[in-house]
Amino acid sequence: MRIGGRHYHTIWIKENDAAIVQVIDQRKLPFAFEVMNIRTVEETFFAIREMVVRGAPLIGVTAAYGMYLALLECNERDPEQHLLEKATYLKSSRPTAVNLAFAVDEMVDFILQHKTEADLVEKTLEKAQQLKQAEIDFGDKIGEAGLEIIEKIFAEKQGTVNILTHCNAGWLACIDWGTATAPIYKAHLKGIPVHVWVDETRPRNQGARLTAFELGEEDVPHTVIPDNTGGHLMQHGMVDMVIVGSDRTTVSGDVANKIGTYLKALAANDNGVPFYAALPSSTFDWEMEDGVKEIPIEQRAAEEVAEIEGWNGQAVQSVRLIPEKSPVANYGFDVTPARLVSGLITERGVCEANKQSILNLFPKYKK
Amino acid sequence: MRIGGRHYHTIWIKENDAAIVQVIDQRKLPFAFEVMNIRTVEETFFAIREMVVRGAPLIGVTAAYGMYLALLECNERDPEQHLLEKATYLKSSRPTAVNLAFAVDEMVDFILQHKTEADLVEKTLEKAQQLKQAEIDFGDKIGEAGLEIIEKIFAEKQGTVNILTHCNAGWLACIDWGTATAPIYKAHLKGIPVHVWVDETRPRNQGARLTAFELGEEDVPHTVIPDNTGGHLMQHGMVDMVIVGSDRTTVSGDVANKIGTYLKALAANDNGVPFYAALPSSTFDWEMEDGVKEIPIEQRAAEEVAEIEGWNGQAVQSVRLIPEKSPVANYGFDVTPARLVSGLITERGVCEANKQSILNLFPKYKK
Repeated sequence: MRIGGRHYHTIWIKENDAAIVQVIDQRKLPFAFEVMNIRTVEETFFAIREMVVRGAPLIGVTAAYGMYLALLECNERDPEQHLLEKATYLKSSRPTAVNLAFAVDEMVDFILQHKTEADLVEKTLEKAQQLKQAEIDFGDKIGEAGLEIIEKIFAEKQGTVNILTHCNAGWLACIDWGTATAPIYKAHLKGIPVHVWVDETRPRNQGARLTAFELGEEDVPHTVIPDNTGGHLMQHGMVDMVIVGSDRTTVSGDVANKIGTYLKALAANDNGVPFYAALPSSTFDWEMEDGVKEIPIEQRAAEEVAEIEGWNGQAVQSVRLIPEKSPVANYGFDVTPARLVSGLITERGVCEANKQSILNLFPKYKK
Repeated sequence: MRIGGRHYHTIWIKENDAAIVQVIDQRKLPFAFEVMNIRTVEETFFAIREMVVRGAPLIGVTAAYGMYLALLECNERDPEQHLLEKATYLKSSRPTAVNLAFAVDEMVDFILQHKTEADLVEKTLEKAQQLKQAEIDFGDKIGEAGLEIIEKIFAEKQGTVNILTHCNAGWLACIDWGTATAPIYKAHLKGIPVHVWVDETRPRNQGARLTAFELGEEDVPHTVIPDNTGGHLMQHGMVDMVIVGSDRTTVSGDVANKIGTYLKALAANDNGVPFYAALPSSTFDWEMEDGVKEIPIEQRAAEEVAEIEGWNGQAVQSVRLIPEKSPVANYGFDVTPARLVSGLITERGVCEANKQSILNLFPKYKK
C-alpha cells in the first residue's frame, strides 16, 4: 500500500544490492518514517526482537530473509552447522511466534536440500521471495472475500459503510493488504464509500499509531476513537460492521485477538451489528475446541500500561500514567467465543464460526 | 479519606483564616500533591473552569463557597446586585454542570433571605458547610448500602472480593467517601478483603490517575488495567462485582456514565457478574424513560484523544498519540440500559433498576 503517495511493502530487497534487506522501521510510526537496512543475521534478530518489524506474517518473512543472509555469511563448503546455529538464534528473537519458527525451518530445509547446487544463493533468495509473495496472496484473497460482505452492506444501505476495527491487523503487520484491513482497502479502491472507526487499542496503541497511519496514507476516511467508544457508536447505528484480525482461531470458531476484542463483539451482538474476524488459515488451531478455557493468554510487561509513548514535538517520548505505587495487569489478548462471531473471512472465502463450516472450507483437517 | 497518612476532604476553610478556601489541586494528581488557596470569586471561577476541582458534588460545593467569598467582597449595604452578578459569572464556569447552578442559587436565596442579619457572614459560611456536609452524608449512606452487597458476596465466597470500577466516582470527585468507591472504603475499613480492578478510563485517564491514587493512599489493594481488559477478567472469574458511578439516571433505571461503562455492563451480563451503579438521588431524571434515545451525549475536545498527559520525571507533559492528519471522536459518556444493571445503590438504600423499584424508594416522585 502507499506511504506518502509511493507504494511500499513492509520488507524488500534493496534495489541493486541483493545483500541488503530493507524494512520500514515501525517503532517510530506514525511520527517518523524511516527505512532500516538489514545486512546480517544479528541485524535480523535485532529487528524482530526490538519490534522494528511486528505482526506474525511480517516476522515470519523477515526471519526467512534472515536465513538467506545467514547463507550469504557462510564461508565453509558445508553450511549446515552455521545455518542450524543461526536458525536457533533467530527463533529465540520472539520465542512465542509460531510463524517465525515455521519460516526459519522451511528455509533451513530448503537450503539443505539444495546445498550442492551452483545457484544456491539465488534459489534461496527466490524461496524467501516466495514466502513473502504467499503472504501478499493471503491478504489479497482475504480482501476479495471480505469485499463481498462490504458490497452487500453497501447495496442495502446505499450510503457510507462504517466499519469498526481494533488493533492493527493491517498491511504493516503483513507485507501488503493486511487481514482485517484488506477488505477495507479493496472496497475503497473499488469506489465503495467506507469510513473506519479506529480503536486506539491500549496499551500499545497499535490502532491509533499504525492503523490510523495506514488508512490516512491510503486516503481511507477514518476516525480514531478511545477503546471505550465503540459500544456507544453501535447503540446509535453508527457502525455497520466490525472486522478484526485473529492471532489464533479454534476449530470451533473462537477467536483470540488483541485484548478488548471480546468487548466489541459483545456490543456488536447487543446491537445487531455483524462481527467478522479476518484471518489466514495458518492461525487455525485444528485441535482446540474451547478457546476461553484452552488458549493461554500472555501477560506482558507492566511498563506498557504504566507508561505511554507519544511525540513530544521532537522525538518519541515515554511519560508515566499511573501512581508510583499502583500495580498494573497487562493481558495481551482475549478470546471472543464463536457465538459472537458472524463469520470468518479466510483466504478460501467466508465461513461461519463453527466447526462444520470451517472444516467444509478446509476439508483436509476433517478427521 | 487519607493522603500521605493524613485525613483530607477535597475542600475546606483554612485553619485560622475563614477568608481562605483551600482545595486539593487535582490537575497534577497523582504526580504532585498541592493545595490551592481560593480567596476570591475569580479564583473560584478559575478552580472550576480549569478543573483544579472536578466531579459534580465537589464543583457544587466549591461554587457554594465561592458565593460565600462573593459576600465577603461586598462593600455595599445591599449586596443583592453584586451577588447576582457573581452568581451568573460562577455558573458560566462549567455551563452544563447542573449541581453548580443549583448550589449557587441555593446560596443566593439564603443570603438574600438573611441579608439584614448581623451575623450574615457566619450564617452564610455555615450554609456552605451544610451543603458540604450533605455531600459527605450522601457518600456515607451510599457506602453503608453498598457495604451490605459486598458483605454478602464475601460471606458466600469466603475470599477476597474483586471489584471492577470505571473512571473516578471516588472521594476526589466528592468531598469524602465518593459514590462508587464508598462501599469499597467501608468494606476495607471493616476488614473485608477487597481488591479493585481500576479501569484506566481513556481518554482522560481518571481511573489510572485519580482512582488508583485514592485507593493507594487509603491502602486498598488495587490493580490498574487498560479499559480493554475487564471482559477477559470476567470470563475467567476474576471479577466478583462491578460498581460504577452515574452522571444521570433515568426513572426507568438507565445509567449515563463515563464512556465505556456500557461495554463493562455487557461483559458483566455475559458472565453473570453483578453490575451496580452507585449514585446520589440528585442524579435521577424523574421525567426520562429511555436513556439511550433521550440523554444527550456531550462531544469533548479532540485533544483529549489525540494527546495524553503524563509525568516526564519533572513535570506533567502532553505527548501526541496519533498521526497529524487523523481525525478523532470524543464522546464523553454512554448509556447502560437498565436491563444490564443489577441494582442502584443510593443514599436511601439499594433498589432494582426499574421504575417501580426506584419510585418505591423515592415515593414523592410518584405521579
